Amino acid sequence: MEKLRFAVAGLGRIGKIHLDNLLHMDNVKVVAVTDPQQKSMQYAKDLGIPTVATYEDLLGYPEVDAIIICTPTDTHADYVEKAAIAGKHVFCEKPLDLNLKRVVEVLEIVEKTKINLMIGFNRRFDPEFTKVKDAVKSGQVGEPHLVKITSRDPGAPPVSYIEQSGGLFLDMTIHDFDMARFVVGKEVNEVYAKGAVLVDEAIGKAGDIDTAIVTLTYVDGTMAVIDNSREAAYGYDQRVEVFGSEGMVQGNNNLLNNHRLYNKDGIHGALPLHFFLERYAQAYKTEMQSFVDTLTGDCDIPVGGEDGLLSLKIGLAAKKSLQENRPVKLEEIK
Amino acid sequence: MEKLRFAVAGLGRIGKIHLDNLLHMDNVKVVAVTDPQQKSMQYAKDLGIPTVATYEDLLGYPEVDAIIICTPTDTHADYVEKAAIAGKHVFCEKPLDLNLKRVVEVLEIVEKTKINLMIGFNRRFDPEFTKVKDAVKSGQVGEPHLVKITSRDPGAPPVSYIEQSGGLFLDMTIHDFDMARFVVGKEVNEVYAKGAVLVDEAIGKAGDIDTAIVTLTYVDGTMAVIDNSREAAYGYDQRVEVFGSEGMVQGNNNLLNNHRLYNKDGIHGALPLHFFLERYAQAYKTEMQSFVDTLTGDCDIPVGGEDGLLSLKIGLAAKKSLQENRPVKLEEIK
Amino acid sequence: MEKLRFAVAGLGRIGKIHLDNLLHMDNVKVVAVTDPQQKSMQYAKDLGIPTVATYEDLLGYPEVDAIIICTPTDTHADYVEKAAIAGKHVFCEKPLDLNLKRVVEVLEIVEKTKINLMIGFNRRFDPEFTKVKDAVKSGQVGEPHLVKITSRDPGAPPVSYIEQSGGLFLDMTIHDFDMARFVVGKEVNEVYAKGAVLVDEAIGKAGDIDTAIVTLTYVDGTMAVIDNSREAAYGYDQRVEVFGSEGMVQGNNNLLNNHRLYNKDGIHGALPLHFFLERYAQAYKTEMQSFVDTLTGDCDIPVGGEDGLLSLKIGLAAKKSLQENRPVKLEEIK
Amino acid sequence: MEKLRFAVAGLGRIGKIHLDNLLHMDNVKVVAVTDPQQKSMQYAKDLGIPTVATYEDLLGYPEVDAIIICTPTDTHADYVEKAAIAGKHVFCEKPLDLNLKRVVEVLEIVEKTKINLMIGFNRRFDPEFTKVKDAVKSGQVGEPHLVKITSRDPGAPPVSYIEQSGGLFLDMTIHDFDMARFVVGKEVNEVYAKGAVLVDEAIGKAGDIDTAIVTLTYVDGTMAVIDNSREAAYGYDQRVEVFGSEGMVQGNNNLLNNHRLYNKDGIHGALPLHFFLERYAQAYKTEMQSFVDTLTGDCDIPVGGEDGLLSLKIGLAAKKSLQENRPVKLEEIK
Repeated sequence: MEKLRFAVAGLGRIGKIHLDNLLHMDNVKVVAVTDPQQKSMQYAKDLGIPTVATYEDLLGYPEVDAIIICTPTDTHADYVEKAAIAGKHVFCEKPLDLNLKRVVEVLEIVEKTKINLMIGFNRRFDPEFTKVKDAVKSGQVGEPHLVKITSRDPGAPPVSYIEQSGGLFLDMTIHDFDMARFVVGKEVNEVYAKGAVLVDEAIGKAGDIDTAIVTLTYVDGTMAVIDNSREAAYGYDQRVEVFGSEGMVQGNNNLLNNHRLYNKDGIHGALPLHFFLERYAQAYKTEMQSFVDTLTGDCDIPVGGEDGLLSLKIGLAAKKSLQENRPVKLEEIK
Repeated sequence: MEKLRFAVAGLGRIGKIHLDNLLHMDNVKVVAVTDPQQKSMQYAKDLGIPTVATYEDLLGYPEVDAIIICTPTDTHADYVEKAAIAGKHVFCEKPLDLNLKRVVEVLEIVEKTKINLMIGFNRRFDPEFTKVKDAVKSGQVGEPHLVKITSRDPGAPPVSYIEQSGGLFLDMTIHDFDMARFVVGKEVNEVYAKGAVLVDEAIGKAGDIDTAIVTLTYVDGTMAVIDNSREAAYGYDQRVEVFGSEGMVQGNNNLLNNHRLYNKDGIHGALPLHFFLERYAQAYKTEMQSFVDTLTGDCDIPVGGEDGLLSLKIGLAAKKSLQENRPVKLEEIK
Repeated sequence: MEKLRFAVAGLGRIGKIHLDNLLHMDNVKVVAVTDPQQKSMQYAKDLGIPTVATYEDLLGYPEVDAIIICTPTDTHADYVEKAAIAGKHVFCEKPLDLNLKRVVEVLEIVEKTKINLMIGFNRRFDPEFTKVKDAVKSGQVGEPHLVKITSRDPGAPPVSYIEQSGGLFLDMTIHDFDMARFVVGKEVNEVYAKGAVLVDEAIGKAGDIDTAIVTLTYVDGTMAVIDNSREAAYGYDQRVEVFGSEGMVQGNNNLLNNHRLYNKDGIHGALPLHFFLERYAQAYKTEMQSFVDTLTGDCDIPVGGEDGLLSLKIGLAAKKSLQENRPVKLEEIK
Repeated sequence: MEKLRFAVAGLGRIGKIHLDNLLHMDNVKVVAVTDPQQKSMQYAKDLGIPTVATYEDLLGYPEVDAIIICTPTDTHADYVEKAAIAGKHVFCEKPLDLNLKRVVEVLEIVEKTKINLMIGFNRRFDPEFTKVKDAVKSGQVGEPHLVKITSRDPGAPPVSYIEQSGGLFLDMTIHDFDMARFVVGKEVNEVYAKGAVLVDEAIGKAGDIDTAIVTLTYVDGTMAVIDNSREAAYGYDQRVEVFGSEGMVQGNNNLLNNHRLYNKDGIHGALPLHFFLERYAQAYKTEMQSFVDTLTGDCDIPVGGEDGLLSLKIGLAAKKSLQENRPVKLEEIK
């Protein structure tokens, strides 16, 4: 069997996870890696993987089939564009870009060059949420009427991050917007967002919110609601519920363990897995496997550039809705 | 010990429950009952309780301390008014009236006559929800940030009922509006309601919706979200969640039993209690005990006329919000 | 409809529960009550029920169909015997007697007189355990292989009680012996009991144990295991599990409520219902209804004298096994 | 940092897991591997690990610090002996041997040579059971009174395996015997085992049982009970419960996922993880890390040769108890 030849750009914590998952696949060979940090380069060398100095070197490396882009957000659009022009398939962490026009531009190039582009909405590959999706898709809850998504982080990121991330709706809720589309396979039509600064005033001063409730209306008139907080005292809270004409299905938190302690004060159990890399460890594996499978022709691209674009649009609509305190149609976002 | 003398107006299913609960209290004597139906009168006679022909007879019955009003909604305002003028304390099923002006009018009379008026928001007395309330009140979740209420009925009422009930927001969600106020002890400022007809087209033809997501904003900027459906295939779904700076507390469904069956297809358990009279059996007991306790001076009125008024206002704001697809401030409702 | 005429002997806490349940049945009239305590007699009078001075008066009361015996254990055998001779049907709290010969004697009289005798093994009517039984009976776990029963009390009874109760196996585990037979419908063949004094040394001094593990072997070679403690810090722990060739079914504890509190220390919930009268409130209702139904011919006696006899035999075998530290066949108990 | 140099003997499924876990550790280098199968040797070569032809070659490989023994059971004693004599530390899969005398002999050599020997009782490292152990050790359940262990396999092994494994008590329950000692840190004094052939008659013909209940008595008079089945229709069932004077703690099954599906038939969830390598994936990681930590001096040996010996003794006592249908003291096993 000829192995697929992969190159990885960016060896931060998420880059390392993708690299490790790739190394466990029989039909993949990681041929080159690049990262501006010396320590990350050494990490690759210790694993026996060749390193190159720049992204351009990576693109030029002999017979690379696909590039994994885990570099900072502001490089994504350019790197995808260059990879597409070079005829390399791309897996790119979300988001492609915060600027809608730029995203459209890049996607046009991707379309022309006919490369495979997959966007890293990892939660689509989580066993909880794929189970929910499968139950919905196979009709186990009948016609879906309501979707409820709870998404709360264990702690807020630094304000410096928030200042350039696009804010709550674009760096955090964007996962939930994608989930809302994914889990019922419907498109969103209208957004109403309500938010507040309840966790940290500094976030408010930076022009963002830290707590939100967002109502989405799908094109068929059914609805979804998302609630977010930047800080949950009890850890990482990630739940999805789909209610339909024949029943309801929930994807729930994964706990540290399932022990129960009974004492005179009550019954006690463990908290949800605290860290997103642990919570979604399996999801990252399945995600990367899924990308590899698209290249071998075993499945279609499960999350394409269009999915990135649509979540961005919903996020921008949510921002506008919050500012103007009114429901905003997606068609207003251009 | 001198017993409190109670009279009951209306012996439908909810009237019978209140009557049975009163009969189990040591310091209460039910002295008279009235109901237009012969069968209901016989029910009382079999229990050895005197019956009278009309509500006016009830008011005139010797030494009645308090009246329990379980008659149809359109009689509530008049009956409360008459009881107040006669100096009788009143427990009245919700709502007082669908007309805001009429409610205000009746409450003014209640205030002048200084009778005790309690409104039958039974869910405030449910062990799940009092536990949630207590946890919030004692600071166990810190400062409350988000409230989530799920309230889904096992099946839709007849369209004929909906036509005169005021619709989803006034006959069903009104319980949730009260819960939203109760559970965090905050007042609502603004309402955004989104709804759809997904259960039964006949409900749409009657001018109502059967599925809804309602976002409430409290005066302090924190938020609540309610989701409703007239029909849940799996039964009566009643959950409340309060998320705050230090944690989260949930009130959950009560199941028929807690058995678990494990077989090759999965793990299976029982459904939620299907019927509201079963689900809230304990709540009705505690509610009536609570009313009796207010009369003996052991506690303040836990749910007064003002509570009925405010839930009605939120309901009317929700209706307006749905019609105009925009957030509506409570102050717009007059 | 002609009502069944009931008399109640003994108005302690369990007598009062049976009385209250009888008073809620349409086709039953409680015609007389007796109890040596003045306070209990007054309780009945307040409910408008005639009282008589002695058990003999009760038997002689006009047209009594059935007697409910809730008097102390040492009166059970005599009272049942007298009722049988008087041609009255009997519901008698367990156990009939601690002496095997005396039980056999009484049962012979019951058989001759052809009265209906039902023994108060209330747990057979608990919704958890009937659900388990039904699942087993309908084949949902296939052929039953193993039964596991956990039965732990919230606190030990006074040593004075233990001294005359027959000890752990005869006053407490006897319920579990009956459950072991009930839940799979099989007879027990052999008993191995292991015990210890871990809760209270005074119990040991009184010649009893407070903690036990008992292995039962059914006639078909399948097995059950029971674990007991006189004191569980977290309350009343009552669980049953049946494992079979096609699956497993569990009956679980009933909690005070189903709330969950999430904070930085973990996830917390409510304890099991603490008091057996609360835990088995529904079971007592269904039990008495079931006795009434046997009298109206709507069902067979669900727990007869033979069931009481067999549980007693298993209990005596357990005592012998504990003393001799060896498995004891039921046929050794005569 | 100088790396520890490891060699692995046997690359079956468990050997591969240990190898993979070792490869993820910073301070470990796997220097050589041996396995009689060509396919397994190729597996190692593909990972860039040198292979040698025999176990003796492995022992002679330059500067090996420790050997991981994952070869068939009948080689364990010899291989450990040889490694000890060669001065290599050893991690050996359980059991050391089925013959008590041979085990004692090997342990004497281990003691003389002062190597570190760790036995692969992987369940001690499972997050569920370490949580239970920690809760007990830190006094959260007070004084432990009762231990309950449920251990049921998803399916029976081939009869050919059972014929040489020592049977249920020595190949399967031995894990539970170790757990019983581990979880409360007490020694077992007496064993009573009851068993039956309920899963597969061929197992009975091979002289073994497939279903069992085993009561253990600790030296302090407290007790444990284990229930086993070779075949659970719903998968791999692994639970531990410790009940004590102040409370109770349970380690529970790990499910495939935590979704819940509600429909008209009930509430449904996923089955336990079916395969022991999945169920204990984390345990295997922690186990091997723990062995490495003993070599670097960061912790004592968590499961030594004595632990293997004692579980074997309990297993032999259980076999004797089953044959003679009587409780057997551990001191009878020599």
